[in-house]
Amino acid sequence: AADSPEPTSTTDSKFKTILVNKENKIYKITLNRPKKMNALNHLMYEEIMQALDEAGKDNSVLTVITGTGNYYCSGNDLENFTSTGGADIPAMAKQAREILYRFVGSFIRFPKPLIALINGPAVGISVTTLGLFDVVYCTDRATFHTPFSSLGQSPEGCSSYIFPQLMGSAKASEVLLFNKKLTAQEALDRNLVTEIFPDASFEKETMARVTKYAQLPPQSLQKSKNLMRQMQKDKLDKVNSEECDLLVERWQSDECMNAIMNFFKRKESKL
Amino acid sequence: AADSPEPTSTTDSKFKTILVNKENKIYKITLNRPKKMNALNHLMYEEIMQALDEAGKDNSVLTVITGTGNYYCSGNDLENFTSTGGADIPAMAKQAREILYRFVGSFIRFPKPLIALINGPAVGISVTTLGLFDVVYCTDRATFHTPFSSLGQSPEGCSSYIFPQLMGSAKASEVLLFNKKLTAQEALDRNLVTEIFPDASFEKETMARVTKYAQLPPQSLQKSKNLMRQMQKDKLDKVNSEECDLLVERWQSDECMNAIMNFFKRKESKL
Amino acid sequence: AADSPEPTSTTDSKFKTILVNKENKIYKITLNRPKKMNALNHLMYEEIMQALDEAGKDNSVLTVITGTGNYYCSGNDLENFTSTGGADIPAMAKQAREILYRFVGSFIRFPKPLIALINGPAVGISVTTLGLFDVVYCTDRATFHTPFSSLGQSPEGCSSYIFPQLMGSAKASEVLLFNKKLTAQEALDRNLVTEIFPDASFEKETMARVTKYAQLPPQSLQKSKNLMRQMQKDKLDKVNSEECDLLVERWQSDECMNAIMNFFKRKESKL
Repeated sequence: AADSPEPTSTTDSKFKTILVNKENKIYKITLNRPKKMNALNHLMYEEIMQALDEAGKDNSVLTVITGTGNYYCSGNDLENFTSTGGADIPAMAKQAREILYRFVGSFIRFPKPLIALINGPAVGISVTTLGLFDVVYCTDRATFHTPFSSLGQSPEGCSSYIFPQLMGSAKASEVLLFNKKLTAQEALDRNLVTEIFPDASFEKETMARVTKYAQLPPQSLQKSKNLMRQMQKDKLDKVNSEECDLLVERWQSDECMNAIMNFFKRKESKL
Repeated sequence: AADSPEPTSTTDSKFKTILVNKENKIYKITLNRPKKMNALNHLMYEEIMQALDEAGKDNSVLTVITGTGNYYCSGNDLENFTSTGGADIPAMAKQAREILYRFVGSFIRFPKPLIALINGPAVGISVTTLGLFDVVYCTDRATFHTPFSSLGQSPEGCSSYIFPQLMGSAKASEVLLFNKKLTAQEALDRNLVTEIFPDASFEKETMARVTKYAQLPPQSLQKSKNLMRQMQKDKLDKVNSEECDLLVERWQSDECMNAIMNFFKRKESKL
Repeated sequence: AADSPEPTSTTDSKFKTILVNKENKIYKITLNRPKKMNALNHLMYEEIMQALDEAGKDNSVLTVITGTGNYYCSGNDLENFTSTGGADIPAMAKQAREILYRFVGSFIRFPKPLIALINGPAVGISVTTLGLFDVVYCTDRATFHTPFSSLGQSPEGCSSYIFPQLMGSAKASEVLLFNKKLTAQEALDRNLVTEIFPDASFEKETMARVTKYAQLPPQSLQKSKNLMRQMQKDKLDKVNSEECDLLVERWQSDECMNAIMNFFKRKESKL
């Protein structure tokens, strides 16, 4: 085995909630809590940040994020709100703010091309952060849903700033204020998505594209990406911070606490 | 009558040029000069500002603006230009600037979700201010026309800044410089409109939507709206001021005075 | 001949790489190196700048740029890179930067409506500068291609800033990072183009439009255009400078030098 060639594909097993695969100059992150429809719990936020940090520094050319199973990601795991037992809500809100701010910041500052392969429905923060990706390919089964106001909450992921730029305020408000769930076609028309692929060939077709992109001159890609992003970085940091501040206030509001209590009551009544 | 329940709908009759109706947490403003195709005279500018001020402060959740009759609004009433008898044009221009600047400012700063129900053709300032609404629903009969340069004038309502953001400069210039009249579909494609409805069911379908939206948590809606707008507010104030300054110069130009004289000559010759 | 009326059309023959025609208040610049598919060499950059300078100052109302033959423009003539014999690459890069910075600046500051008539395929800088035009009409034969990363280079013409505004980052990155060639319809959908015309009637239909536009009040057009652009001018100057700085670094990189060497090898091997 000492003679065996360097493996062309390596899978990192230090993570519990994501899979990481490095192959063909591509650093691939797969959200991997399929029983929870890839909902983000605190460990998963931390592991994605750690993976993005590695991906930005290693010799890969670009980074891909996708999901295991039928969902891309069902958003923030609402059980994050109950993990402290509800005993100290201000402390819970402060901790959640700190994680969220760092998480979104790791997308704002990611130095290489970042490509989302949306393999199914996407909810909440997995939708709002899409404006920070460089390419977004989705299956025709994908939907995009950000039901913030029905939960008494407010937008994050810099979407309050980027979504109006992508689709205008009249369409962004319907999505971010009034809980409109977008089809793949509607997300494409609103510039949230680059291209739609048939579900049956989604993985094959998109990985062929990404593999081809990873052969391009890496410095040219990386520096061109940063040129496209740098004029916005200070503004995005500010937006991220203001969005997090508002969420801290929202999480402690009656509107939000009632909505989340109702969510868990409905869930229990189904058991 | 002392026992009668609190009315579910109240209509305010202190206004002469608009109707105001408060029902189901919705503050509804109806432009009401149907014989003038809802053209805006000075009193109407003032009454809309007064209504918006009230709507921002009362216990309604959101505000709707629509029009009576076949038109949404035919724009600035050109008779505003002749109301001073043409005797003191610089004074007329100064007064008109002051009204316009306050009028557009009241949209920039409106604190709750603001929804336009475009029930027919829209012209001039009733089009340019649409970028300051949160949702714009229109009937398939609607058209959108901003014939500024044919009148020797220039864009207002922050459209010189917002329209290029919505549709790109190549499409915005055709509208704001070259007098292209948009169909409902073209306005939808250019992100000026959120959704188009069949004329026959327009009022019913859109009021059903708006009524549903008004049941959402009010603080979440209001604070999320302001989050989406706050990064732009200083810039929009500056744009509003510069647009008004240019209009003062334009109103006193030969190009504009000749165009308006020709407008009234054509009108007279039809009598 | 002393009695002959002032000519309605004049053609300026002081230029070697472009044609200039002044007629019906329109200053028309035609890129005229059809054997090179209207590729831009250093003389052509200078002549276009000189023509734009004249057009901004004379009594024309608007300016049109189009191309001779089947191409609109095949981009930067790669022979510019070999014109110094490759002897002094840093000096070559410095000179090219200076020309490029002035060239793009002359579009940023152009004071009158600027209309592109894209008569065929457009490549590189002839695509990236389109965000600085006010109207872009194209034939259905047109394509839009910016293969920067395949040449180890990076975007210019303010496209790194304007393209994400026009079409969102997810679509702009595919074009500027991953070499996607756009059809006319794709360019229209991405707000790079105002309208597409059938190739057979392209020249006739677009010149009819432009001729009509040139009859509008000139001061209204010029001042409205500048109102629409002024809020962006400082930012665009900064973007232009940063794009040029990155290109200077790119032109001296191994990635770029290898790509250009391969380009000329492939060309030679075809002879």
